[in-house]
Formats: sequence, structure tokens, C-alpha cells
Amino acid sequence: MQKLVDINCDMGESFGAYTIGMDEAVLGHISSANIACGFHAGDPMVLDRTVAMAAAKGVGVGAHPGYPDLMGFGRRNMHCSNAEVRNYLIYQVGAVQAFCRVHGVALQHVKPHGGLYNMAVEDEALARTIAEAVAAVDRGLLLVALAGANAARVRAMAAEVGLQVCFEAFPDRAYTARGTLVSRRKPGAVIEDPQTVAQRALMMAAEGKVVAEDGSVLELTVDTLCVHGDNPAAVNLTGTIRQTLLDAGVGVAPMAEIVRLRDA
Amino acid sequence: MQKLVDINCDMGESFGAYTIGMDEAVLGHISSANIACGFHAGDPMVLDRTVAMAAAKGVGVGAHPGYPDLMGFGRRNMHCSNAEVRNYLIYQVGAVQAFCRVHGVALQHVKPHGGLYNMAVEDEALARTIAEAVAAVDRGLLLVALAGANAARVRAMAAEVGLQVCFEAFPDRAYTARGTLVSRRKPGAVIEDPQTVAQRALMMAAEGKVVAEDGSVLELTVDTLCVHGDNPAAVNLTGTIRQTLLDAGVGVAPMAEIVRLRDA
Amino acid sequence: MQKLVDINCDMGESFGAYTIGMDEAVLGHISSANIACGFHAGDPMVLDRTVAMAAAKGVGVGAHPGYPDLMGFGRRNMHCSNAEVRNYLIYQVGAVQAFCRVHGVALQHVKPHGGLYNMAVEDEALARTIAEAVAAVDRGLLLVALAGANAARVRAMAAEVGLQVCFEAFPDRAYTARGTLVSRRKPGAVIEDPQTVAQRALMMAAEGKVVAEDGSVLELTVDTLCVHGDNPAAVNLTGTIRQTLLDAGVGVAPMAEIVRLRDA
Amino acid sequence: MQKLVDINCDMGESFGAYTIGMDEAVLGHISSANIACGFHAGDPMVLDRTVAMAAAKGVGVGAHPGYPDLMGFGRRNMHCSNAEVRNYLIYQVGAVQAFCRVHGVALQHVKPHGGLYNMAVEDEALARTIAEAVAAVDRGLLLVALAGANAARVRAMAAEVGLQVCFEAFPDRAYTARGTLVSRRKPGAVIEDPQTVAQRALMMAAEGKVVAEDGSVLELTVDTLCVHGDNPAAVNLTGTIRQTLLDAGVGVAPMAEIVRLRDA
Repeated sequence: MQKLVDINCDMGESFGAYTIGMDEAVLGHISSANIACGFHAGDPMVLDRTVAMAAAKGVGVGAHPGYPDLMGFGRRNMHCSNAEVRNYLIYQVGAVQAFCRVHGVALQHVKPHGGLYNMAVEDEALARTIAEAVAAVDRGLLLVALAGANAARVRAMAAEVGLQVCFEAFPDRAYTARGTLVSRRKPGAVIEDPQTVAQRALMMAAEGKVVAEDGSVLELTVDTLCVHGDNPAAVNLTGTIRQTLLDAGVGVAPMAEIVRLRDA
Repeated sequence: MQKLVDINCDMGESFGAYTIGMDEAVLGHISSANIACGFHAGDPMVLDRTVAMAAAKGVGVGAHPGYPDLMGFGRRNMHCSNAEVRNYLIYQVGAVQAFCRVHGVALQHVKPHGGLYNMAVEDEALARTIAEAVAAVDRGLLLVALAGANAARVRAMAAEVGLQVCFEAFPDRAYTARGTLVSRRKPGAVIEDPQTVAQRALMMAAEGKVVAEDGSVLELTVDTLCVHGDNPAAVNLTGTIRQTLLDAGVGVAPMAEIVRLRDA
Repeated sequence: MQKLVDINCDMGESFGAYTIGMDEAVLGHISSANIACGFHAGDPMVLDRTVAMAAAKGVGVGAHPGYPDLMGFGRRNMHCSNAEVRNYLIYQVGAVQAFCRVHGVALQHVKPHGGLYNMAVEDEALARTIAEAVAAVDRGLLLVALAGANAARVRAMAAEVGLQVCFEAFPDRAYTARGTLVSRRKPGAVIEDPQTVAQRALMMAAEGKVVAEDGSVLELTVDTLCVHGDNPAAVNLTGTIRQTLLDAGVGVAPMAEIVRLRDA
Repeated sequence: MQKLVDINCDMGESFGAYTIGMDEAVLGHISSANIACGFHAGDPMVLDRTVAMAAAKGVGVGAHPGYPDLMGFGRRNMHCSNAEVRNYLIYQVGAVQAFCRVHGVALQHVKPHGGLYNMAVEDEALARTIAEAVAAVDRGLLLVALAGANAARVRAMAAEVGLQVCFEAFPDRAYTARGTLVSRRKPGAVIEDPQTVAQRALMMAAEGKVVAEDGSVLELTVDTLCVHGDNPAAVNLTGTIRQTLLDAGVGVAPMAEIVRLRDA
């Protein structure tokens, strides 16, 4: 059976008169879209346009909820209560679902953004709150979480909540020997050479492995590869990753299909 | 067959540390709740709490979308494009629907708020945009519109779009002989005597009639009576209206039931 | 004595992670900057950076207040009360003044933005409200208003309030024979040929005249020319306008100096 | 010479249609007002009204800046950069200063709000950032900081920056033996008996002492006592504190006068 992987990218991050991201271009290279929901980025006009474009290209639609912090683009850690996080997620996921209904597609997944994503990696109670919020809206939604050190724990927690998890890896990020991402503040945390990134993506997708910063080889469950679409170079890199996968016989498909086959 | 009417009230208008409205008290007297959606009032915490309370009391849940103007409480006219209005509505309705799913109830209706409601009374293209947005999300939703002068036109427009309309009357507002509301800027526009308001409510519900400011009697299709819950006097008045209806043999039921029977 | 004119441009419109405008490039060509104040665009980080850049280049610093509508970029008409407009202006002007103090310059002028500017052209009471708000903060501030049809009335009104007005013209906009701007919705409203725009700028600055859409020649008091810096073509056009003025012997200086000489 | 102390209270926290606080009532009992600046609470209409009331009563006007988090009322910790905090403060202080100019008073002090205040107690670099921002706008402004454990360090830091500090104590809060506030999450952290609170206020003001939770007596530099005005009981308590001070011969005066005499 052909090996398959998903490619996911954040989008729908424009707001009013402000444009971020080359959404239309990058949609040609990916299979799942994480669409901002209007709290840290995005607005109803952008949501409508982005869901419509993703639906038209057969790209899986995901909600990408974040903290209510447009000025900080949701990147800043905010000490919200778990009840606040839960309700912020329900609200944002519901808003995206309405645009999905309007455009005749089902919402596929939820991937927390920025500070919320990062804080959940460190905080089990927060991670469970996020999973419970998603499950409360719809148990058919996939929850995207970081492949690596915490994957087994996250999978078990999500199973208790009644959700399936889709694990993502970052081809352009260095990994510690423990299977966590090297902090962006350290030199070498972000890998810039396109060919190296594409080869890492292939190794992640085809073999479920990544070479850590100390040279050791880690095994990861990789359902989806996270890429970027902010600028022409990022879009080109995404195209290179996709082509490298296809040339090596790895298929690209939305994460719903990947997880279905993985758990079949 | 017993005559029935709905009683609707705006609620869920608190925000963060700020409280507006005596939602819990008024929920004991009404049958449909118009819940603010986070643009002009309300937030995800308030939405969760308010939908839960309404569901627990068997009160029909409605979305009460408004302009993105928290500072003006959605009361100020804003010249948004029709595409903007459409997408602002889809977004807000979707957010409320998610809390309905979480609390195991179906969303019953949509009633625009403040400036949006008022501008739609004057502007046919805007009224159609609102109806189309609601229909795009779910044709099973009821659209609440003003009973009176424009009712026939609104009903025809909604039918083209595929929606049913629930017509509301205001027992505490004076009506012109044409069947429109007397502007709040005019003296006498708001009727303050509780017994007078309750008797007007009964006449609207039982006979489908209202006495206009010039003494003439207008016929109106009245599916629901709009009441207020901002302060103890308003809550008491709502209780008086309900009791007056019940004492006269008029039942109170959520607007979905009223419209089903009306169109049966 | 050498003829002088000011060139003004909106800037500081970026917000958080979002960038609009090529502020640094356009600052090399202009003499007064209208800096967004955080309501319709701009934020405190952007304000700090923009005031610092303008101060470093000797460009006159102005506040560019707008409606509290980031999602609509302040372009949508909003029906605020005059008291609301007054206090929104005082707030925004004060915020910019603080950054002026930090960077050791005096605030030079106030120019309303977008919907607020346009509504004030039509509404005398709103125009007076704006002038009174500016005067309440500091009578030394210049108020920028549209040269043309209403100039005499605006000047008289401002004098009553205790303010001086700086009149601006738009080299890239068509004018009616009455001396108002042709609506952007009409074809030909925006003039796109750079040489034509530069020659109109020169005629405005050197002769105080503009050719209207019907070919008639209008006389205008022109203290400042409004230009744009949103994209490379706009920045180039601004450079062309400046060079055309200088080549014809017209000097470019901040509006405070223009008005001082005009009224001397 | 008569012993003097200031009494300060947060106010101006209403927003749009939302009311918080009994500002007018509490203004009769206090000598300095910390006025919200529009980020975590307050808006331009409220600012105008609140500065006007404080000015009319001779109460010292202070800016009470917070995080840009209206939904969380600025109480949530946010991990902003120091540059962000600096510019958020400059912006907010400037906005309040404009209303001071309009109402003919000088801004007296700056007191950070909520999460910002609490984070600064723990984080020296953040505390210095705040002081530098205030000094950058105006070195004549007083910075309000917590009396107790860190007072000497804060005073030294402020002196380097060129600011004077006004130290505040909380009559209704329990103190640790180290001179810090007992966390609100612990039982007994907030003292509720009005007479006890009033006596603690008197001991703080007259003797510069407080009895800690373990019974030990701490010495504190107390320039101002922080009180509350959210509800009728809080307003009454504030009146009781003031009367207790006056009955014991302690005068009440704005913090500018207290600090002037203290450092004379």
C-alpha cells in the first residue's frame, strides 16, 4: 500500500485591510488548511474567502483557534483559565463550522495556534481542556498535536475524551534527542536550506524518523507535515517538499484520510 | 384551539467583568432568548452560561448578531457592505450554534440587533442580505422581523430565500398609524405604565391588534412579544405580561412552535 | 519669496504582525506625516517607530485619528454622537502627543481619517466638533481640511474655535466644477498617469489652481498636497511630485511653516 | 506637623453601555483617582467624564494603564515584550494626559493595573521598563508601587530613572511577615470587617506599621492607602476609613502633596 502523508499550513490570517500569507498559492501544494478564526487573526470576510478556496481545491478545512490577542497575533502566552480556553475554542470552532456549512464541506480538524499551542505542549491540564472543548463540539473532529516526546500521552488523553489525534512534524525545525522542538531562540533551531528541509520531510513521511540535533535518529508517528506560506520562498519550499514526496512515491492526502488509514 | 404567543428577550449581553441584564430572572418568564454573539456584546464565557441556562429552562435559543462595535453596543448605524454583513452574521450564528451543540439544543432563530435591525427595516437589500446569510447557514432557522408595515414584503422576501419569518411586536412601544414604531426620540414613544403595557401585549397576542398613537386600530401578525430584562422593573413587567396572558387563556410557547402552528 | 508647499502622507497604519505602507521610503519625499492613532489602524509599537522616523527626518508629525473600526480600517461611516467623536479625537491625539514628547518633537497637526474625514466634509456640526476637540487639546495644532468648495466656511468656523486650518489638495483626484472631489465610484475619479499627477501637483502648489473635470479652472488655497505610500508605484509617484516641484522652484516644507508664512 | 496620607481608588472602569464602579460616590472620600485608560477598561467617553469629576472635586488624577485585554479586564498575565509594555504605557498615559489638559489639571501619577502590576512586583526588568516609560513621557509623574518588601529596591531603581515613587498599602489585605501581600487564593487574604480595616488603615497612615499574618509588626513607608469603590459596601468602607483617619488627626491629601512633604 502506498505511503501517504498530509501537508498542513496556517492560513486565513489576513484581517480587514491587512494581508498576511499567500493563501491561494500555497493551497495548490497542501492537503489541509488551518484557518484562523478571528481571535488572533482572520475575520469573517477572510474566513469566507479562505474556506471557499480550500473547499474548491479539495483541501481539508481545519479551525486554527488562538488567544483573543490580535495585537500580539496570538503568539503571546496569556494566563486564561481553563474554562476561558474551553469557551474560546468552542466559539471559534463554531464560527468556522458555519462557513464550512455555507460552502458545503465538513470541518476536518482543529489545531491550536501560537501561544495556545505552545502552552498546551507544556501543560497537561490545558491540553486536556483543549481536547474536551473540541470533543464537546464534535467528536468527529481531529485534534492536531505535536509528534514526538508527548505523543503517547496526548493520544491516551484524547482517547479518554473520545477524539482521534493527528500528529504533526516540522521539517524545518531542529529536534532535541528527547523528541521536542529546539527553541527558536537557539541558533540552528530553524533549518533554512530547502533541499535539507525537503529531505527531512521525506524521512519523516516515509520512515517516521528525524535526525535530532545530536545526530541520533528518533522515531515519530507523523501524520502531517507543517509548512508555511508567508512569502514566495516559503511557498516555493512547500512546492519542493510536495514534489520530493511525490517523486519518492509518497502520496499527499488530507489528514482525515491519513488518520483513517493509520487506525484502520 | 388555545391561542399561543412567544415572549422573547435579549440576553447574554454581559462581557468579561461587565454585567448587563438579569438573565436568570427573566428566563423564568419568557419562551425565546436572543443571545448576543460577541460582536456588539457577549463573550464566549457568557454565551456558554446563557445557552446552558436557556436550555435548562426549555427556552428557545436564538442568535442576536450585531455590528462589530462593542464600544457602541451595536446601536450605531455602520455602513458595512452587504458582503460584510452577510459574513458577520454567518460567523456569529455559527459561534452560537456551537454552544447549542455543546448544550444539546438546536438553534431556533436569529434576530438582528440594534443598528443592524433598524437599518434592515429601512433597507430592503440589507434585509435580504440578512435573510440570505441565515438561510446559507441553516434554512430551518427562523428569522425574527418587525410585525407591521413591512411584514408582507418581508415574508415574501424570506420565502424566496427559503426561510420562515417570526413577526414580533413591542408592547411597550407606540405605533404610528402606518404600523411602524414611533421613534424613540419622540415623547410617548415608550409606554411606561405596566398595566397598559400588559394590556397591549394581550391585545397583540389574543387579537393581533394594536392601538396606534392616533387612536386607530391596526391589525398585525404577532408571533412573539419583545420584552426587556435590564433591571428589576423590566423583569417584573415581563412577569406581569406573562401572567396577564395566561390569565386570559393565552399560552406562552417558543416561537418555533408558534410559527409551526401558524403555518400548519 | 520662494513659493513653498507641504507634502503630506498617511502612515503608521501597520498593526501588530500586519504591515501596510512603505513608511520609511515615503518619508524621504514628504514634509508632513499623518500617523494613525490605534483606532482604525496603528498600534503603540508602530506609533513609537513611526514618530521616531518622522522626527529623525525632520518631517512634521500629525495625528490621523479615525473611527474605532480596525476591521473596516476606519473607512466605513459610523453614526457616532458628536460627544463620542470629540472624545475619540482627544484620546487619539493625546496618545500621539505622548510619543512626540518621548521623541522630542511637537505635534504639528491633526487630520481626520477615512469615514470621519468624509462625513465631516458633508456635516458642518461634525466638522465643528472635530475642530473643537483639537482646540480643546491644544490651540497650536493645525487642522487639515479639504481645499475647495467649503474652504471659506471651514476657515471661519475654525477661527471661531481658535484654530488655524491647513488646506489640502489631491493631485491624483478629479475635481468637480464646484471644487469638490469626484466620487471614487465614478470612472476617472482617480488619475493614474504619473506625469499628469505631477503637473497637477505643480499647478496646485505654484498657482493655487486645478483643472476640473469639465475643463474649467478653479482657484484653491493649497497649503499641502496629499500623496500615498502604500506601494512602490505610489512611493515613486511621490518622489516624482517632489522633484517636479523642486525643479520648478517650488520648495517643500512642513505645513506649520507653510501656514505661518501664509498668514504672516 | 500634621500627619498626612493619600487615599487612592481605581475608577473610570466603565465601558460603552457597561458600568462598573460607583465613581461619583467614592470620589467624595478619596484624594487620588487611578483612571483606566481604555486598554483593559474605560473608553474615551468614560475618561472624559471621570477626569472632569475628579478635577471638579480636587482629587489627584492618575493614569491606570493595563494590558490590552478588555475581555479579561487586564487581570490575566500576558507575556508581552518589554518594548510592548513600554509603548502600551506611553500610549495610555498620553491619552489620559489629553483629557487632563482639556479639563485644566495636571496628570499626577501612574499606577499599573492588574496583571501588569502583579507581574512587575515579581519581575525587576518589567518594573524598570514601566518606570522608564513613565519617565520618558514626564519625569514629574509619580509612580505608584507596593509598599513593603521591595520598596527600597523600587525606590533606588526609580531614582536612577529620574522618578519619584509613591508607596501604597492595602488596609484590607493580609501581609506576610516578609512584607508582601498574602495571595488572594489563601483564606484570610482579604480582611472583611470594616472596623478592622479602618484600624489597619490608621496604623498604616499614622505609624507606618502593619500587623502581619503571624502577628509580627512590620514597618512600611505608606504614602497612600488603596481602597475600592465597586459596590455600596466598598464605598461605605472608604468613607469609614477616611473618617477614622480624620478623627485621629491624620489628614488626607493627594499623593503629590504627600510625596513632596515626605521628600522635603
